[in-house]
Amino acid sequence: MAGLAALSAAAQSKIVTESIQSGKLGCEQKYNVYLPDGYDAAKSYPVIYLLHGLYGDYSNWVQMGGMKIIADELIGTGELCPVVIVMPNAGDNDVHNYQNGYFNVKDWPYEDFFFQEFLPAVEQKFNCGGSKGKRAVMGLSMGGGGSIAYAQRHPELFSSAYGMSAWLDNKQREVRGTGKPESKLTLTDESVRKHSTLDFMDNADEKTIGQLKTVQWFLDCGDDDSLMPLSVELHLKMKKAGLHSELRVRNGGHTWEYWHTALRESFPFASRNFCR
Amino acid sequence: MAGLAALSAAAQSKIVTESIQSGKLGCEQKYNVYLPDGYDAAKSYPVIYLLHGLYGDYSNWVQMGGMKIIADELIGTGELCPVVIVMPNAGDNDVHNYQNGYFNVKDWPYEDFFFQEFLPAVEQKFNCGGSKGKRAVMGLSMGGGGSIAYAQRHPELFSSAYGMSAWLDNKQREVRGTGKPESKLTLTDESVRKHSTLDFMDNADEKTIGQLKTVQWFLDCGDDDSLMPLSVELHLKMKKAGLHSELRVRNGGHTWEYWHTALRESFPFASRNFCR
Amino acid sequence: MAGLAALSAAAQSKIVTESIQSGKLGCEQKYNVYLPDGYDAAKSYPVIYLLHGLYGDYSNWVQMGGMKIIADELIGTGELCPVVIVMPNAGDNDVHNYQNGYFNVKDWPYEDFFFQEFLPAVEQKFNCGGSKGKRAVMGLSMGGGGSIAYAQRHPELFSSAYGMSAWLDNKQREVRGTGKPESKLTLTDESVRKHSTLDFMDNADEKTIGQLKTVQWFLDCGDDDSLMPLSVELHLKMKKAGLHSELRVRNGGHTWEYWHTALRESFPFASRNFCR
Amino acid sequence: MAGLAALSAAAQSKIVTESIQSGKLGCEQKYNVYLPDGYDAAKSYPVIYLLHGLYGDYSNWVQMGGMKIIADELIGTGELCPVVIVMPNAGDNDVHNYQNGYFNVKDWPYEDFFFQEFLPAVEQKFNCGGSKGKRAVMGLSMGGGGSIAYAQRHPELFSSAYGMSAWLDNKQREVRGTGKPESKLTLTDESVRKHSTLDFMDNADEKTIGQLKTVQWFLDCGDDDSLMPLSVELHLKMKKAGLHSELRVRNGGHTWEYWHTALRESFPFASRNFCR
Repeated sequence: MAGLAALSAAAQSKIVTESIQSGKLGCEQKYNVYLPDGYDAAKSYPVIYLLHGLYGDYSNWVQMGGMKIIADELIGTGELCPVVIVMPNAGDNDVHNYQNGYFNVKDWPYEDFFFQEFLPAVEQKFNCGGSKGKRAVMGLSMGGGGSIAYAQRHPELFSSAYGMSAWLDNKQREVRGTGKPESKLTLTDESVRKHSTLDFMDNADEKTIGQLKTVQWFLDCGDDDSLMPLSVELHLKMKKAGLHSELRVRNGGHTWEYWHTALRESFPFASRNFCR
Repeated sequence: MAGLAALSAAAQSKIVTESIQSGKLGCEQKYNVYLPDGYDAAKSYPVIYLLHGLYGDYSNWVQMGGMKIIADELIGTGELCPVVIVMPNAGDNDVHNYQNGYFNVKDWPYEDFFFQEFLPAVEQKFNCGGSKGKRAVMGLSMGGGGSIAYAQRHPELFSSAYGMSAWLDNKQREVRGTGKPESKLTLTDESVRKHSTLDFMDNADEKTIGQLKTVQWFLDCGDDDSLMPLSVELHLKMKKAGLHSELRVRNGGHTWEYWHTALRESFPFASRNFCR
Repeated sequence: MAGLAALSAAAQSKIVTESIQSGKLGCEQKYNVYLPDGYDAAKSYPVIYLLHGLYGDYSNWVQMGGMKIIADELIGTGELCPVVIVMPNAGDNDVHNYQNGYFNVKDWPYEDFFFQEFLPAVEQKFNCGGSKGKRAVMGLSMGGGGSIAYAQRHPELFSSAYGMSAWLDNKQREVRGTGKPESKLTLTDESVRKHSTLDFMDNADEKTIGQLKTVQWFLDCGDDDSLMPLSVELHLKMKKAGLHSELRVRNGGHTWEYWHTALRESFPFASRNFCR
Repeated sequence: MAGLAALSAAAQSKIVTESIQSGKLGCEQKYNVYLPDGYDAAKSYPVIYLLHGLYGDYSNWVQMGGMKIIADELIGTGELCPVVIVMPNAGDNDVHNYQNGYFNVKDWPYEDFFFQEFLPAVEQKFNCGGSKGKRAVMGLSMGGGGSIAYAQRHPELFSSAYGMSAWLDNKQREVRGTGKPESKLTLTDESVRKHSTLDFMDNADEKTIGQLKTVQWFLDCGDDDSLMPLSVELHLKMKKAGLHSELRVRNGGHTWEYWHTALRESFPFASRNFCR
């Protein structure tokens, strides 16, 4: 008596929650991993790093973003190749009271952790990535900014970067948490300002531009999102510099519905830019 | 310190949970209601009845179907007019151990309850509907079949009907729960068989066809859904009879992702068929 | 022996080519009109003005833009109500050697012609429009700018305006045709500069803003189109002023494919903003 | 004075018209070829065969289907890899007065011509295809049926097949042109009947099914197209046999607009199924 529940076959993909002990951060960091239907540790897979936003954590993309059902569907049609999708944690919600972001700040060398500890460990553990041609990065809001900045600063590591509703710069914003200059949020704000992806383009020399041309770029932001002008501005700078950049402004705001539907564009984009 | 949470304005729509004491069913029935941003009880609204599937309840469309965020977005663009959306409960999960469906079965006159008790009460309470031109019905699976059957049997009440992954007929299926002929699920199965929407078309006389032409019909089912041929068959019968029927077969199975995205088609469809 | 040609019914809509003798322009002006399937001169219809771009003429939307097949399809699904679609001619290709645009320039009072001669005549002849609630304007490139400017300058006449790849301002462009200050193209350039839709927003007083709020605005421009920043800038100005503006940046350039597919958004947009 | 014509860069792809002298058919056969931007005869490309419908010819996809602008756009985003697209001629409009189709009929061994003369010659001439993993076939109506039948009968040659509004079987149709048993159209009708893709599935033994599993299948037909049930039926037979089949029923009839938009699905489908 299976009922109507079995009216269509479901993919046997899995979400596993793991953790890594970070020497650099001095704490344990949890993360989620999507393993595709038929995942076989003896085979090698490409990898997508899927980053969460401010105030969020590693569990968001599964619990609020519905990433599993979209990945399953797109792998089913072949629009996304079988891939390992890694969802890291950008903060340290157990110990500190604020978000910390994707960059190195005082007492929290997150970018060092990400590239020197996390990425090598997770790619070895799940037999994925291993080279630029098999690695993509994407994310939403603070994680969208993180994705673009990571690919700007490490173009030799990523074949593509996709920023959703991306927090790409902080120059026109008040530093929040004034009066609490040491607060984690103030540090996050300052680090976004310091790592402005717009400034990065303005300051890039010819050699850097050459390296950025080896990455495929995509910016996607809602027409009601106050961050939208940042995506437009960066797209124009990248186009002017001769980079391959796509821009989309779809209907919507800074919402999970926007990011959920963005996956239908971002996953195939990553997939077709993996090396053949 | 508003943070990034307020990067776009959110609609002030509401979900309210209500209940009605049914004399016919002899129990209380809960339901959810979506009230649009700026809802004003002094104004009159059109109404959409949004039906859940087998094993489900009145809470599904909010909790699993993400109906609120889609309704908000489509009202924002004007693709959906400001509307009251009513999500009834088809079963009685507290008292009986099985689903009961949308039709009258032994000791459970649900269709009578729906049209004689529920619909009048909710439309009065929320100042919505009141006439065919301001009323639509839609739903998924068992609720998709229920939507089509309700509009077939009460064409004077609905301007449009939209079936998602609809359970439209039961002739080619085994009666489930055999050996338990009195089980609720057996009754549900038998009632779908008895109210076959395909048979309804085969048996419709000229006068009935004339009435059915006053309703706009839409069938939408996934290419991996084993119920899909039913939607195709009904669409062909309706077209042959001169009814206005739309059919879509999109990628997917019998899943919440399919129904979530179906709302982007079904809500505007209902809206543009409300009388002007 | 009907062959496969009759495998689906075709809408019996019509394109008719008409002309009007303009006293203001001192010449005859041709235009195309789309009349929907079942058009009945005894009934009243809403009207859409669909404007062509620089170097184009009244025939473009039919011959290069494929507007008929899209209008037929969208009327078939109800996404567009039965409507008269008027495609005027912005230039005078027979007499002058350059395009003239949608504004009054020296010896070519086109805007006067449009509102004082053309619009009243065509609406009477085809029994369409007649009021703001039954009138929309849209167009591509120079005609996109013209659409937005017309609705800014005559908000009492249009319920909605949709600019595709719109030429909204000319301040950052060289005056073309320098050395030929009297050339028609120079006049067109100067007139776009003079009627900048961006400046219009900057200069609008409170009363004007109040009038602009009665119009629904939509800007749609490709991510590879060098005019795109103008649409973004105007959208931001309109949002800031509290107007209802939608912005889309889709993939593409300044091409007929972009405008052809834009009709799938612009026609329903106009339709749902006609008064009920 | 570049004007607005150069507001976005255009791809430098080309359509070239060629012809081949066929010994088997005893006549010359023209065909069109799409060469992507940057085509370099020294490199090797995958190939797509894009087939026209009844009463059509090799020029249709360019002149009426707008295939160039869609291919350019999709190659631009990477959704379609740089590919040679070959548009053959199925008839012999100069000599005979009727269409002849894609199969061998009396005095017209077209299938032999296609596989023994045409395909080898064109792939050598344009340095494309050469193996199953670099070859796809797709087409509309009679060419949709031809595409599916070719891949059924030559599964070792194609990685994917996509039928648009496909004429897949002829059993339920009257033989047209009765009274003229020797007419070309009668021969075409009979050949579609004889090569029924539905019968092919019914009659396929285990070994054949195994070969069909190496091809990716896609059927796409409008909800107002009288051929639609054929696509549904074939999809169900293929799914039942364990083949990878996709089905879409979108809005529309048997029209060029349907086929034009189908290319947005069919080109990426072919591309992602080319071998890596």
